[in-house]
Amino acid sequence: MSLVIVGSIGLDTIVTPMGQVSDALGGSAVYGALAASTFTDVFIVGVVGEDFPNKHLQLIQQHKINIDGLKVEPGKTFRWKGVYHDWNHADTISTELNVFADFAPVLPESCKSCRSLLLGNIHPDLQLQVLDQIDHYQYVAFDTMNYWITGCPEKVKKVIERVGIVFMNEDEIKQFTNSNSIFTAAQKTLAMGPKLVIVKRGEYGCVVVSADSYYFLPAYPVENVCDPTGAGDSFAGGFMGYLAGQNELSLDVIKQATRYGTIIAALNVSSFSVDRLATMDMVEIQTRNIDLIKWTT
Amino acid sequence: MSLVIVGSIGLDTIVTPMGQVSDALGGSAVYGALAASTFTDVFIVGVVGEDFPNKHLQLIQQHKINIDGLKVEPGKTFRWKGVYHDWNHADTISTELNVFADFAPVLPESCKSCRSLLLGNIHPDLQLQVLDQIDHYQYVAFDTMNYWITGCPEKVKKVIERVGIVFMNEDEIKQFTNSNSIFTAAQKTLAMGPKLVIVKRGEYGCVVVSADSYYFLPAYPVENVCDPTGAGDSFAGGFMGYLAGQNELSLDVIKQATRYGTIIAALNVSSFSVDRLATMDMVEIQTRNIDLIKWTT
Repeated sequence: MSLVIVGSIGLDTIVTPMGQVSDALGGSAVYGALAASTFTDVFIVGVVGEDFPNKHLQLIQQHKINIDGLKVEPGKTFRWKGVYHDWNHADTISTELNVFADFAPVLPESCKSCRSLLLGNIHPDLQLQVLDQIDHYQYVAFDTMNYWITGCPEKVKKVIERVGIVFMNEDEIKQFTNSNSIFTAAQKTLAMGPKLVIVKRGEYGCVVVSADSYYFLPAYPVENVCDPTGAGDSFAGGFMGYLAGQNELSLDVIKQATRYGTIIAALNVSSFSVDRLATMDMVEIQTRNIDLIKWTT
Repeated sequence: MSLVIVGSIGLDTIVTPMGQVSDALGGSAVYGALAASTFTDVFIVGVVGEDFPNKHLQLIQQHKINIDGLKVEPGKTFRWKGVYHDWNHADTISTELNVFADFAPVLPESCKSCRSLLLGNIHPDLQLQVLDQIDHYQYVAFDTMNYWITGCPEKVKKVIERVGIVFMNEDEIKQFTNSNSIFTAAQKTLAMGPKLVIVKRGEYGCVVVSADSYYFLPAYPVENVCDPTGAGDSFAGGFMGYLAGQNELSLDVIKQATRYGTIIAALNVSSFSVDRLATMDMVEIQTRNIDLIKWTT
């Protein structure tokens, strides 16, 4: 089965203690799609401007990523500029929405056979628009950010009520549910409808919470973090990419999806932009999978 | 085999968002000894004043804890008063060393058969004095705090060079080794001599690092944290108490010791002072042990 990923596609200018890049390939859909493409065919749905470099388009297509749902509109591509003073937080210097301001996601005919969907971090109204276009999907996941939780929590809730899998980081889910504990927060979120809540804890890994179980996984150790941008997106992409090929959401499948998401997120932050996602292979992913199993069991 | 624990014995006045207690039983040796007593016979080495309540002494003795090394000196018992505004940090309101100011630890004759030692968080000079008194010990562990790492790092290093097991939290070990990564920090610490470094990460659990392996374990979830005092001491006590009864430091033994330390620390923070340590039993510890295995493997 294939996976549809809807989200931002952009050009990032990023400064970290390790260096900087300008107009590098980025966006939640791009990080997610490259991560997922290791495991499954991916359809990317998003918008870019006429200035979007052809080399970026080629890179995306080289990874089994279908671009029928990628619109090129007159104008400039979405741009983000951020500075990391520490690894847990980026100061946004500027955000230029450009063609992304009028983005209205439309799923192309060619992805009608897909049964998995990852709604990247975009306005919940857009996420709801996408949910109106799907039918009989097996795995539907969504990611968000504190900006939407603060700005339109009721809309975020509407999305959550219609998805099966929720990705949130610990601060976001505490804020969203007004809880001090991520465990209480996850249970409150599950009560809204989803089957699975994945609480991301940055360098401390994640907890996957279902109605009757937890699964704790540490982050895969990274000696030299280079650029944290897209860690959450590549985690979700790796998770959903693996899940898209599985027949059922068993505990074993969930654990393996979590390990793959964790490993790919760690690979991603070890280089700028999507550089490492573009070059990683299954051999190095499986080596790290064996490490993680050894280090946690 | 039995375990010797050297450290502070005190009366704590603690204020947390959940309430407060005055002159409650506390101190690193007490938390450690009560935690360890679940698994092994314990010899506590420390000092109290003449005002030390008899009921506290009785509680200690009721838990298979030998007090031959507990001196009662003229004067008042060590007192600490702290306020927790959040769960990760206590503001110290006052510290009265009292009889603890002249503490010179002496291991009693009766504990000569012991082969395990836990050096609780006290001045590294005192820890070195204890190390001079032991011979042919199988497991020797030490705990410390940022106060000693800042004040006398060279002395902390001297202790580390003579112990097999190091307990430090992540900020402490980064500071001590001048490293950004706990993994680098742990390797630098191992290079000083110890076989095992346990990096404590508070609510995120811990990582046990040896020369050729990691073991990651999350904290056991606690819905209602009441009083974090003694979390690290009870973790170390539970770990060392279990280890004291084991013939070798195998990976399986290390993992089980880490789970027991984790579980007992979680029980401890769910009540004020040592209340929960005093009442916990092996049935509830084993239930949580099964949970941890299920949630991590």
